[in-house]
Amino acid sequence: MRIGQGFDAHRFAGDASRRELWLAGLVWPDSGPGIEGDSDGDVAAHALIDALLAAAGLGDIGSLFGVGADAHGAGMHGSAMLRETVAHLRDHGFEPVSASVAIVGNRPKIGPRRAEACEALTAAVGCPVSVTATTTDRMGFTGRGEGIAAVANALVEER
Amino acid sequence: MRIGQGFDAHRFAGDASRRELWLAGLVWPDSGPGIEGDSDGDVAAHALIDALLAAAGLGDIGSLFGVGADAHGAGMHGSAMLRETVAHLRDHGFEPVSASVAIVGNRPKIGPRRAEACEALTAAVGCPVSVTATTTDRMGFTGRGEGIAAVANALVEER
Amino acid sequence: MRIGQGFDAHRFAGDASRRELWLAGLVWPDSGPGIEGDSDGDVAAHALIDALLAAAGLGDIGSLFGVGADAHGAGMHGSAMLRETVAHLRDHGFEPVSASVAIVGNRPKIGPRRAEACEALTAAVGCPVSVTATTTDRMGFTGRGEGIAAVANALVEER
Repeated sequence: MRIGQGFDAHRFAGDASRRELWLAGLVWPDSGPGIEGDSDGDVAAHALIDALLAAAGLGDIGSLFGVGADAHGAGMHGSAMLRETVAHLRDHGFEPVSASVAIVGNRPKIGPRRAEACEALTAAVGCPVSVTATTTDRMGFTGRGEGIAAVANALVEER
Repeated sequence: MRIGQGFDAHRFAGDASRRELWLAGLVWPDSGPGIEGDSDGDVAAHALIDALLAAAGLGDIGSLFGVGADAHGAGMHGSAMLRETVAHLRDHGFEPVSASVAIVGNRPKIGPRRAEACEALTAAVGCPVSVTATTTDRMGFTGRGEGIAAVANALVEER
Repeated sequence: MRIGQGFDAHRFAGDASRRELWLAGLVWPDSGPGIEGDSDGDVAAHALIDALLAAAGLGDIGSLFGVGADAHGAGMHGSAMLRETVAHLRDHGFEPVSASVAIVGNRPKIGPRRAEACEALTAAVGCPVSVTATTTDRMGFTGRGEGIAAVANALVEER
């Protein structure tokens, strides 16, 4: 059994942006502008990817998907990136056992769609994935609504 | 074996506040004003609750205790909330195995009472719970003393 | 099996500082000034130390190495502190199983030397240790380049 830790943070797009808000494998309409990033900006998926790769000792999201507009991961949705991450783990003899992500930000409101988010991430990873959500009481960059952060952990086992 | 991640942050009450400071299941007299929140503001307990619920796939603190002054958890102390969380896990066939919380803030000074805090949280959760503490060198909202944060993880097993 | 959570953050030394930059058990020449701290300021090693000590229920970095310029850990490098931490765990019947650290900051660029960092930390801890790295998109104290943070987790087993 091996453990991994992941973290990610991204800036919200400006109020005038029509960028869709993607988070935890779902699109969130009517929740304000989306999250900046070369991919869809899904910090929950990205933190989980880092946790899974770290647990397997296979680098991080930057080494697997590249960085920048020309990167392999550019334009990809979080769920697709998670699926590719898990395929990469399996190619190297690792199987995800359990994973979890804590989302920190003012929006979207996760609660009403938490079950749906867990289902989407669980389907992508192939093991139970949980989602919790909290704010920082108007403190710091998440509290001021500048961006959103996520911290994740994962267990994997070697086959 | 399943893993969970939790995070919480709350604002300190103003200097004129007589609110008691509750953290890690203990009251800290002579350590300045308390932490704001619908409950006692115990971010260490709250982060642990999210980690435990996440590990068991049972939602988060908001879904179990509600949000706001009328919430089920309003006015509850962290230890009581932890006990109720663990009862909820057991009702669903999960048993806590191990948990840990890292507290980030300028006050109170945890070190002299760390053993006592671990004992209080271990008694509430019914498995070994550890507490570490650090500051952010005067950086960010924790470093400026605006508030306090905690990041936690937990292992649970399905019976 | 027991789990631990660690966190650390330190301020970068000023631009005029000739302090060496130590991180994840390595020195990073040509990556700007180092990190402040009583020891070498290696936040990745420090977060891992807290995660390992927490997993074993043996306190935190402050209780093992002290705080301040006269502390036992003053001037020590992260790798040496990790080795002493693991010896302490073994003295108490615990063995590290797996550990992981997520580094959050603008510099140094971890990617090109991630494998080397993992090797250094793995050698120090005696179990697989992974390193991931990310930024906060110019947000918060890490995004403004004021300092660097790290969040870590670890699994240990009792012999």
